[in-house]
Amino acid sequence: MNIKKNLTELQNYTLEGEGNGLFDDIKSISEATQKSLSWINPERKDKEELFKNSKAGIIICHQEERFSAGRNQLLIKVPDPKLAFSVIVNAITANNTSAFIHPSATIHPEAKIGKSVTIGANCVLGKILIGNNTIIGPNSVIEDNTQIGNQVVIKSSVAIGGDGYGYVKDNNVQIKFPHIGGVIIKDEVHIGSNTCIDRGSLGNTVIGQSTKIDNLVHIAHNVQIGENCNIIALSIVGGSTTIGDNTWISPSVSIRDAVKIGSNSLIGLGSVVTKSVPDNEIWMGNPAKFFKNKG
Amino acid sequence: MNIKKNLTELQNYTLEGEGNGLFDDIKSISEATQKSLSWINPERKDKEELFKNSKAGIIICHQEERFSAGRNQLLIKVPDPKLAFSVIVNAITANNTSAFIHPSATIHPEAKIGKSVTIGANCVLGKILIGNNTIIGPNSVIEDNTQIGNQVVIKSSVAIGGDGYGYVKDNNVQIKFPHIGGVIIKDEVHIGSNTCIDRGSLGNTVIGQSTKIDNLVHIAHNVQIGENCNIIALSIVGGSTTIGDNTWISPSVSIRDAVKIGSNSLIGLGSVVTKSVPDNEIWMGNPAKFFKNKG
Amino acid sequence: MNIKKNLTELQNYTLEGEGNGLFDDIKSISEATQKSLSWINPERKDKEELFKNSKAGIIICHQEERFSAGRNQLLIKVPDPKLAFSVIVNAITANNTSAFIHPSATIHPEAKIGKSVTIGANCVLGKILIGNNTIIGPNSVIEDNTQIGNQVVIKSSVAIGGDGYGYVKDNNVQIKFPHIGGVIIKDEVHIGSNTCIDRGSLGNTVIGQSTKIDNLVHIAHNVQIGENCNIIALSIVGGSTTIGDNTWISPSVSIRDAVKIGSNSLIGLGSVVTKSVPDNEIWMGNPAKFFKNKG
Repeated sequence: MNIKKNLTELQNYTLEGEGNGLFDDIKSISEATQKSLSWINPERKDKEELFKNSKAGIIICHQEERFSAGRNQLLIKVPDPKLAFSVIVNAITANNTSAFIHPSATIHPEAKIGKSVTIGANCVLGKILIGNNTIIGPNSVIEDNTQIGNQVVIKSSVAIGGDGYGYVKDNNVQIKFPHIGGVIIKDEVHIGSNTCIDRGSLGNTVIGQSTKIDNLVHIAHNVQIGENCNIIALSIVGGSTTIGDNTWISPSVSIRDAVKIGSNSLIGLGSVVTKSVPDNEIWMGNPAKFFKNKG
Repeated sequence: MNIKKNLTELQNYTLEGEGNGLFDDIKSISEATQKSLSWINPERKDKEELFKNSKAGIIICHQEERFSAGRNQLLIKVPDPKLAFSVIVNAITANNTSAFIHPSATIHPEAKIGKSVTIGANCVLGKILIGNNTIIGPNSVIEDNTQIGNQVVIKSSVAIGGDGYGYVKDNNVQIKFPHIGGVIIKDEVHIGSNTCIDRGSLGNTVIGQSTKIDNLVHIAHNVQIGENCNIIALSIVGGSTTIGDNTWISPSVSIRDAVKIGSNSLIGLGSVVTKSVPDNEIWMGNPAKFFKNKG
Repeated sequence: MNIKKNLTELQNYTLEGEGNGLFDDIKSISEATQKSLSWINPERKDKEELFKNSKAGIIICHQEERFSAGRNQLLIKVPDPKLAFSVIVNAITANNTSAFIHPSATIHPEAKIGKSVTIGANCVLGKILIGNNTIIGPNSVIEDNTQIGNQVVIKSSVAIGGDGYGYVKDNNVQIKFPHIGGVIIKDEVHIGSNTCIDRGSLGNTVIGQSTKIDNLVHIAHNVQIGENCNIIALSIVGGSTTIGDNTWISPSVSIRDAVKIGSNSLIGLGSVVTKSVPDNEIWMGNPAKFFKNKG
């Protein structure tokens, strides 16, 4: 491969050094060889050391680094090395295999499936709607009344659209509160393996555009999550809770039902959120408390 | 649909207003139209406002509300609106599709399966016993030595009857402690998606009648849970721990092994329970401590 | 069955009593009958009582117990009763069914599978490498670029080798950081049901020899776990974090990304680990703090 063919992906870069730009693999800076494409994270304190000890033939680094290219080395200096590296490597490794619907999938005859959709082995899909270019990993179960947008990526063994958890007592007998709503998953959402998203009771559970959900997360009935949020592994968002846009939920966070988490906020690792959190704030702890404003 | 046909489900109600009782859908009070059946939760502080702004044709509400029916509106006043709404909607939406065993399920030839049992696609069932009217969702795995009662509901991708987690060291080698017990799931238990219930080591892991377990819960080996408990998502009940009857385990609770949680108690959101909890108490925190008596 | 045939499994034991050593089943000390093999845990405070009330025909107990065998009872006194009981029962209950690859499994044509490997129903396996005598439970999904050793046991509905969770922002758009690494699972590792292990971004995620992972655990991208560790249910190990050898991670622990947990350490139940933990220490709490040295 020749990195020079991929530089069109970048808007802004300078090249330094005499390396020919050919590479065979993509490696971390410490494992790279003369035949590797690599990058250096400008936030690492040991970056000078990493550079000095690296044999990488091609390195994407920050435009202000004072590294000077070794013999046969090519430096690509950019404003945002992590972004530039991601864009280039994603282009190189783009999956060009055609979309497919695996024959072992069980799909409701009235499901409506868009163009170029991939449905993995052993998926079980109810009467649902799927947009274009969406990928559903193997062994996932998606029940009636779910709408999935375009460019959505769902990993394996996911459960979407199951009945929410809600009971009402008739003397001492637990009667199920009805769950006849649905789930709406907007465009470009990602959903991790073994994650569960329950259907709404009367209305819908909604995951906003470009929100990215990790593995083993539980999203309860009637939750409304805005755009561009991040919900990391083993977190729970309780029933009817709302989350704004651009908010980051760290791993193992539990958020109680019926609270409101603002936009552009951050909930710290392992926090237990028992009340509403305003916009632009960082909260953490058990119970979670205001920690500081978010810049 | 005509609500008047469903009023036989209720023991105690009064009708107010001149609405004809016809409806096309079931909606939350704020989304309802003239053609909707809805309800108002008597605990909401904004209930007067909700009522005033709602266009719902039929509203189930508390018998002491002073709402007065608008033109073409029908109010159904009852002692417990949430219960009345649940009972009526469950009757309306009752799934009348016949039970089925999906042909893609893999079932041990010696499994004993009761009447009107539904087994979803890609289930893998060992030498187990299933009562009548039980539903097992798609992609679930239930291993040998599991007994499941009547009217049990198991959601998708559940793991029941796997070996428990227990090792004994032989010098520095971890030898598996034997797990040759089983799992007993009593009548009317509900089990959420991606939940795991391990088999007992020598005795059984037991889930008592009408206990309702949410998604992504881990019940370890030899746990004994009583009747009518609620175990919410992402909680763990450690090995050999016992829980009494009517106890509520909030989301993301971790309960250590070999403790005793009493009856009619409540463990708060995200609590870490390191010792036994008596009957009728509310505990919370990390580590969980007594908070107050439960009324 | 006759226990005398199994005593060759033990290096060191003395027999007391006149029992004939015949048994029909294996039970806990309180449930055992004259026809049962059982054991008494030397750490139980009520062990004298348990012994006195037990009807067990055969009891494995500590060599220093002063129990004296009843009529028709056989006591097997050993240095480590839990280990002796495990070794004997594992030998008795050893699964002698042949390895099989279930016909419903979907396996990449270039996957390389060792000898005597069992692959359960509905597994979906990419271009992976599996050693000898390994068992993969039903409904598990293992993606390209995963290497699995010998004598590995993987339970049901596991997700191994999926893309890690990492995004980089391009203005307000979340671009996926590339995940082109793999997962390496060494010999004798156990992995619980519904557990997720993500592939590395550039390098590999590595699970060291004989490490035992429980159900519903999340191991993020590029994590390196040493040998002989225990990671209990509902815990998360954050991206690029390393764990040494012989370390115990209790249930519901969250460990942030990019920290270093030493060897022979222990993290307590429900702890939230926000910084590195040295060797030989016990940490607990939210946030986790040093509690005491480990003996």
